[in-house]
Amino acid sequence: MEKISKNILNQVILPRNPESYKGNYGKVLIIAGSTHFGGAAILASSAAVHSGAGLVTVATTPEKFTAINTRIPEAMTIDYHNKKELLTAILNNNVIAIGPGLGTSSVAIGLVKAVLNNTKTDQTVILDASALTIIAEEKIPLQTTAHIILTPHQGEWRRLSQLEIPEQTELNNFEKLQDINPEAVLILKKHNSEIYFQDMSFKITAGNAGMATGGMGDTLTGIMAGFIGQFGYSLATIQAALLIHSVIGDKLFEKEYVVLPSKIIEKLPKYMQKFSLLNK
Amino acid sequence: MEKISKNILNQVILPRNPESYKGNYGKVLIIAGSTHFGGAAILASSAAVHSGAGLVTVATTPEKFTAINTRIPEAMTIDYHNKKELLTAILNNNVIAIGPGLGTSSVAIGLVKAVLNNTKTDQTVILDASALTIIAEEKIPLQTTAHIILTPHQGEWRRLSQLEIPEQTELNNFEKLQDINPEAVLILKKHNSEIYFQDMSFKITAGNAGMATGGMGDTLTGIMAGFIGQFGYSLATIQAALLIHSVIGDKLFEKEYVVLPSKIIEKLPKYMQKFSLLNK
Amino acid sequence: MEKISKNILNQVILPRNPESYKGNYGKVLIIAGSTHFGGAAILASSAAVHSGAGLVTVATTPEKFTAINTRIPEAMTIDYHNKKELLTAILNNNVIAIGPGLGTSSVAIGLVKAVLNNTKTDQTVILDASALTIIAEEKIPLQTTAHIILTPHQGEWRRLSQLEIPEQTELNNFEKLQDINPEAVLILKKHNSEIYFQDMSFKITAGNAGMATGGMGDTLTGIMAGFIGQFGYSLATIQAALLIHSVIGDKLFEKEYVVLPSKIIEKLPKYMQKFSLLNK
Amino acid sequence: MEKISKNILNQVILPRNPESYKGNYGKVLIIAGSTHFGGAAILASSAAVHSGAGLVTVATTPEKFTAINTRIPEAMTIDYHNKKELLTAILNNNVIAIGPGLGTSSVAIGLVKAVLNNTKTDQTVILDASALTIIAEEKIPLQTTAHIILTPHQGEWRRLSQLEIPEQTELNNFEKLQDINPEAVLILKKHNSEIYFQDMSFKITAGNAGMATGGMGDTLTGIMAGFIGQFGYSLATIQAALLIHSVIGDKLFEKEYVVLPSKIIEKLPKYMQKFSLLNK
Repeated sequence: MEKISKNILNQVILPRNPESYKGNYGKVLIIAGSTHFGGAAILASSAAVHSGAGLVTVATTPEKFTAINTRIPEAMTIDYHNKKELLTAILNNNVIAIGPGLGTSSVAIGLVKAVLNNTKTDQTVILDASALTIIAEEKIPLQTTAHIILTPHQGEWRRLSQLEIPEQTELNNFEKLQDINPEAVLILKKHNSEIYFQDMSFKITAGNAGMATGGMGDTLTGIMAGFIGQFGYSLATIQAALLIHSVIGDKLFEKEYVVLPSKIIEKLPKYMQKFSLLNK
Repeated sequence: MEKISKNILNQVILPRNPESYKGNYGKVLIIAGSTHFGGAAILASSAAVHSGAGLVTVATTPEKFTAINTRIPEAMTIDYHNKKELLTAILNNNVIAIGPGLGTSSVAIGLVKAVLNNTKTDQTVILDASALTIIAEEKIPLQTTAHIILTPHQGEWRRLSQLEIPEQTELNNFEKLQDINPEAVLILKKHNSEIYFQDMSFKITAGNAGMATGGMGDTLTGIMAGFIGQFGYSLATIQAALLIHSVIGDKLFEKEYVVLPSKIIEKLPKYMQKFSLLNK
Repeated sequence: MEKISKNILNQVILPRNPESYKGNYGKVLIIAGSTHFGGAAILASSAAVHSGAGLVTVATTPEKFTAINTRIPEAMTIDYHNKKELLTAILNNNVIAIGPGLGTSSVAIGLVKAVLNNTKTDQTVILDASALTIIAEEKIPLQTTAHIILTPHQGEWRRLSQLEIPEQTELNNFEKLQDINPEAVLILKKHNSEIYFQDMSFKITAGNAGMATGGMGDTLTGIMAGFIGQFGYSLATIQAALLIHSVIGDKLFEKEYVVLPSKIIEKLPKYMQKFSLLNK
Repeated sequence: MEKISKNILNQVILPRNPESYKGNYGKVLIIAGSTHFGGAAILASSAAVHSGAGLVTVATTPEKFTAINTRIPEAMTIDYHNKKELLTAILNNNVIAIGPGLGTSSVAIGLVKAVLNNTKTDQTVILDASALTIIAEEKIPLQTTAHIILTPHQGEWRRLSQLEIPEQTELNNFEKLQDINPEAVLILKKHNSEIYFQDMSFKITAGNAGMATGGMGDTLTGIMAGFIGQFGYSLATIQAALLIHSVIGDKLFEKEYVVLPSKIIEKLPKYMQKFSLLNK
């Protein structure tokens, strides 16, 4: 398993073309949040905005619009109960991240199916948290022709792969991912998180126990969406997104016993610029 | 095309008369926001408050009052569905900015018409975002005797002028603006944004690709409204408002890969004072 | 007219007794806010909390509870439409400030009357903004035996006193205040604000034009309430509250062209400690 | 009465195991807040999140969800009126803190009973504020086999123990606590707060009069919950939670006349890391 080098960050986070405009940096749709898990939608979409996505839309339950407007005025919102608006949003965005705080209600199941049925080549679908649980429980096949990224932590991967945590070896993970979808990327969140894609595997040697707190995964999902939106889908982009999340977390951990997701989000623009400027 | 010099900033942002009161710094009405685009109203009105407008009122849908109260307690709110209150507000404010996050519903169309039908000499109307789309789609003539400022980005200008982006040359822009309204000011937002007024044109050589993110235009609209509210309508004021937005953006971009609109807003009072103090 | 010296600040802001508890620092009731003016309630109550009031309750319309909870979790809320709860709150608080953002509806008129009819000796009533307009328009006599403080700006004082602004001379102000209530304190907010009480008058030589912005008066009202809550009703306390508001404003104005009320509020604990420590 | 040494902080706040995950740091349920006291729920749950609890759920009235999502996106929410969801939450969390801003309605009484009737060995129940009042007024016996921590201030302890404040001597406190529940820990909040457990008593010599402000107790409750969630129930953990609250308060008090609860919360990760690093 190859260790991901910090060099990936400046290789991916290139200086922007001065003549570009927001349309060049991706249209990201975050389908997230439910009555009891509103914060997850805030963290994921805030992370997407702070990581530089050109335009971010949050599809959520309307009762969360006020909190989203207050925390992230840069983001737009739609009501995910409105099927027509949701479909339009799925068709019009490059990157669709689904799952943080979604819950496993029939509405949530319908949302996961809507994404998998209506996305296609050139789009990227990130399946996280509740979306992974739904796929496992409802045995929903990952049939879209869009790029697929799965971001389970070990417990979610157990539900999805039927592998108990001690059985989650490199070999077993490769095999199960093949069964689930041979074209999908698996990001397995754990101490030294791992990436699996086809016959390749990578791991980061960053991250810390201060990051072991609620909302941390939602934040990674938002960064992943923001990075793919602006840097394009590629293994390098995925590696960079995974790594920067932990690199910032490690920096904060030097001075903070618990690393709050919202603090990582806040630091994204500065760390991204730091790595981008290494290219000069 | 003349380059706008940074000197315009200290020429416009003069030290305030110690015996003045808030009534001297303009009454600004921001007509903005709708169910799905609440953040635009927050950014525009927050920018107006931070740029020094004496009194800022946001006409929006009431579901956004809580987010506005929370983010900008300095601003007042009215419900733009209430025609009587809206009309009173249009008559009582010096500067009216309409469009950010308004959408193109029949309500929004009615709001644009109400502004154009009820404003007059000595008032300034800033038409942005959805308001520009409405004018283009509904072919609404700009008949008010108020000062008019149009702030399209290139896509909005295409809809308004029928000029494809490569055709948006200085000469063509002049001609189309004459057709639309020979007294209006056109601010064309792009890499090195441009100002057109009668037979004059100007451009800034500030701004950066880190500013290519959602909400940036809403923020400019708010600054424009705040500047005209307190410094009065003039080409110099318009130039200064356009320039300071990008000057602050450039400063932030030195350390931040993506320049969030809310960060620019936050920095307004300090940068304005910096330029004001150059007069001492 | 005597100039208020900065020494008043350390004379009033004494180090707290280590064995004290929050009950020693006053119970403050802020009756403020309405549908369109929610921010005023936030600013006034936030100022009271930050200036050290032991317990702050905001009586407002329930639609503003979320914004207040979000901005000032330290404050409690009651619904001012509930007459029984309102009366209990009026009876149980030491300091009652009424007016910021209240509007002049029949509900607001009822609130002003409820305060004046149900307060008594040892309580302090601060009448500001809409409450002053209501008193002027409804010709409501100030009959309570509580201490009364009126905090009009020049326009509000004109409505209350029938004195046009050029006629608002020291002599005329004394006379009119006698007519209105010979025991009340008048704080006339203007360039170099003035205090009138019986045959004494004072002025501050602090404050600046950067403070000429919406919400600044609401903030002063909150500071006044917080100061009287913890330091007790006295001319010295009133002078200190008026002065610190402008002293902080002047400090901010050195670096900020417009001084936002929320920034003054944020700085209160530090400036108060600075003056308190001068006693050591 | 033994003085609690600062050493307890580094003894309790140990460096985290790098291979741990959020499940290792406790599941904390905060049952708090009501229509008029929404801020208490925010402060308590925000303190739990910032002190490092792995997962924090706030059971409150749904009208407070937006404020909680906005201030603490890291926390989850449930509606405490929903008996089934509440019971599931009580069964599934390690630490349950009940009381801040709860009020004494019949709903609140039901919540206190639900906690006492459904918790058991290995769980910890923290009873604070309104929960203590309810227990005193309703004479509810503390029959759970869970660990019990009572956190009254002197007034609440008077209601609970029938001891007037001057009678709240060490001996009397021991005796009354025996009567109430011989296994419970009593934290008596006052100048130099005290801890009573069986035949042991401890006090801190930290804290200051700047902390005498609304919301300070809610904050301690959240820290207590967060500490027990991650460091486990023990006298040492309880001592450390009580002490760090005042240690941070003392640090802030050096520069701030009034120490706002939200400022203490914000500083928790830094101070905890500072003490944790003393172990290296």
